[in-house]
Amino acid sequence: MTEELENENNSIPDGKYGLIKKIAEKTNNYNKETLFGIGDDCAVLKFGNCKTVVSSDIFAEGIHFDLTYTPIKHLGYKTVVAGISDIYAMNATPKQITICLAVSNAIMQSHILSFFDGVSAACKEYNVDLVGGDITTSKKGITISVTSIGVADENDIVYRSGAKPTDLLCVTGDLGGAYMGLQLLEREKTLFNANPEQQPQLEGYDYILRRQLKPEVPKDLLDYFKKTGVKPTSMIDVSSGLASEIINICRASEVGCEIFEERIPIASDTEKMAKEFNINPIVTALNGGEDYELLFTIELSNYDKIKNTDMFKIIGSINAADKGRNIVMEDGSIITLEPSINNQTFQNVQ
Amino acid sequence: MTEELENENNSIPDGKYGLIKKIAEKTNNYNKETLFGIGDDCAVLKFGNCKTVVSSDIFAEGIHFDLTYTPIKHLGYKTVVAGISDIYAMNATPKQITICLAVSNAIMQSHILSFFDGVSAACKEYNVDLVGGDITTSKKGITISVTSIGVADENDIVYRSGAKPTDLLCVTGDLGGAYMGLQLLEREKTLFNANPEQQPQLEGYDYILRRQLKPEVPKDLLDYFKKTGVKPTSMIDVSSGLASEIINICRASEVGCEIFEERIPIASDTEKMAKEFNINPIVTALNGGEDYELLFTIELSNYDKIKNTDMFKIIGSINAADKGRNIVMEDGSIITLEPSINNQTFQNVQ
Repeated sequence: MTEELENENNSIPDGKYGLIKKIAEKTNNYNKETLFGIGDDCAVLKFGNCKTVVSSDIFAEGIHFDLTYTPIKHLGYKTVVAGISDIYAMNATPKQITICLAVSNAIMQSHILSFFDGVSAACKEYNVDLVGGDITTSKKGITISVTSIGVADENDIVYRSGAKPTDLLCVTGDLGGAYMGLQLLEREKTLFNANPEQQPQLEGYDYILRRQLKPEVPKDLLDYFKKTGVKPTSMIDVSSGLASEIINICRASEVGCEIFEERIPIASDTEKMAKEFNINPIVTALNGGEDYELLFTIELSNYDKIKNTDMFKIIGSINAADKGRNIVMEDGSIITLEPSINNQTFQNVQ
Repeated sequence: MTEELENENNSIPDGKYGLIKKIAEKTNNYNKETLFGIGDDCAVLKFGNCKTVVSSDIFAEGIHFDLTYTPIKHLGYKTVVAGISDIYAMNATPKQITICLAVSNAIMQSHILSFFDGVSAACKEYNVDLVGGDITTSKKGITISVTSIGVADENDIVYRSGAKPTDLLCVTGDLGGAYMGLQLLEREKTLFNANPEQQPQLEGYDYILRRQLKPEVPKDLLDYFKKTGVKPTSMIDVSSGLASEIINICRASEVGCEIFEERIPIASDTEKMAKEFNINPIVTALNGGEDYELLFTIELSNYDKIKNTDMFKIIGSINAADKGRNIVMEDGSIITLEPSINNQTFQNVQ
C-alpha cells in the first residue's frame, strides 16, 4: 500500500481496503441501534422494530465521470442507481436518498436542474424518495455524494460474509459493457480533441453506451428471492470489476472460490468492442466496473429451484479458503483471481 | 437570483434557497415511510414504530475550510459537529453518521487518518457511531460530505415551521465568534504569505479560535427541554448567520419577528476582535455563520419556566408575517432583517 490513496478509476482500490480497515479500527459503536457498522455494502441499523440499511458514496468529476461526453441528466440518474445498488446488495428495498453537490461557479443553475431531472427519473423508476441533501460551491469541478436508506424484513438482510464452501456463485445480467462504453467514449473524445471537425462515431454501439451512461440495477431479483424462497448466503453489487467483488465476498466470508471463464456473462456487443480495442473480453468483466449487477452466493441445495432461471447465471462455486481464488480458463488452465488482472495475463495464457 | 450558485462562504446563499425549492418541486415521495422530505434541517422518516431524522451536508476545500491553518484533525471533529447539529435542531438525538471524502493524490494517508482521529473524538463526545462512507480520489483538493441519522420520540420532533406570533425567540451560547476566528486566521495567513519570517500572532485569541476550529453543539439543551417539559415550537441550527436562520424560521412558519440588538449574545472576545477589524459586532452575529448554536421559539406561556435559565437567551419574539422581520437597535431605530446585512448598514445607523 502506498502512502497516497490509489486512483480508483477503472482499477481496484486495494489501498482503500486497507485504509478503511484502519479507520474502522479507530471507531467505536456507542449505540445499541447500530447492528453493523463499517465493512459491507451498507451499515445495518435497528430503530424500533425495523431494520434499516444505509450507504454513502462519493463521485468526483474527472475521476468518476467526464462531462464532456456524459449528459448531466444521465449523471443524475446514474448517481441514484450507484447509490441504491448498495441497498439491493443487502437484499433490502431502497426507500430514500439524499444527494449533496459541490459545484463550481462555472456550472449553470439549469445544469443543476437537469441533473435533478435525472435524479427524479431514477427515483420514479425505483420508487425512491429524494429527501434531502446539500448544494454548495466548490473551487473547481463537481463532486457528488449520495446516501441511500433502505428497509428489510427482520431476517432478510444479506451480508458479504455468509458464503460457505459448496455455495454456488451467481451473477445477474452481463459484465464489462459499462467499461467498454467508457473506452468508446474516451476514444471518440481523444479523436475529437485531435480533430474537432470529426464527429464522434457512436452509431451501432447503443448497448455499451447505455450500460455506461444509464445503468440499471436488477431490482426484480429481490422479488425472485421472495417468490422462490431462495435467500442468498452472501451478496454484493458489482460496482468495481467482478474480480474485486468476488474477492470482497471471499475476504468477508473467509472462503475461496472457483469460477469458470466460459460462464462469465459478456454481451456480444461488449465482446465485439473489446476485440476492436484488442482487450480480452474477460478482462472487461473482471476489472471493468460500473455494471451495477448483483453478485451473490446460494446454497447448493437450492440448485433445482434456480437451475432454469434466466434472472442470473451460475459462474462458479465457493471453496475452502486454502484452495485459493481461481478462474478456470476455457483451455483448462487456472489463473489466480487478483483484484486487478491485466490484459497481458490473459494474452499470455491464450 | 443569478444563474450561478452564490458562494456560501460567509454569505447567505439565498440563490440556494430558490434552487432547492425548484429541486423539491421536481420530486415526488413514493413511500409511506417518508414523513417529511426536503425543506427542514432534516428529513423525517418512519420505520416501524420509530421516527428517524436524516441530514446530509457537503464541504469543499477553499470554500468551507483552508488547510493552511486548519489542523486536519480539527476538520474531522468539526465535520461531525456540523453534521449532527442538524439532528439536534430537530430535537432529536444523533446516533449514526457516514462520511465521504474525495481527496487528491497529494493528500497523505496519514492525514486522512488524522482527519478520522478528529471524527472519532467527536463521535465519542456526542455518542455517535461512524457506520460507513466512502473514500475516493479527486482531481484537486478535498471535498467532505457527512450524513447524520438520529432518532426522536414520536411527538418530540420540532420543525422550522411551528413558530406562532407571541412565541419567544431564543438562542443558545453566543454568536459571531467562529466568524471572527476565521477573520483572524485569514489575516495572519495574509501577513505570513507577505512575510514568511513573521510568525502568526494567535496568542490571547483562544476563544474565537476554538469557536472557529473546534465548535461544539449545545447538546444539553435537549435534556433541558425534556426535564422542564418545555418543547420548542420551531428550531434550527445556526450554521449560517443568525439573520438567515431567523429568516428560515419566519419563511417556514409564515411569521414575522422582532429581535433586539442589545439581547443578541456576543462574547467579549468576539466584540474585541470585531472592533480591531472595524466591524460592528452585531454584523458578526447576524452574518457570521458556523456558530452551531441552536435558535428556537417557545410559547410565551412557558416564560416563567425559562426566565432564569442560563442555557439560552431570549432575543426577541415572533410577530404576524405582515409586521415584517425587524431588529430594534439600541438607539431605538429599526432595521429590516435581511439575509445579508452589511457592516455599512449599521455604520450608517450608529
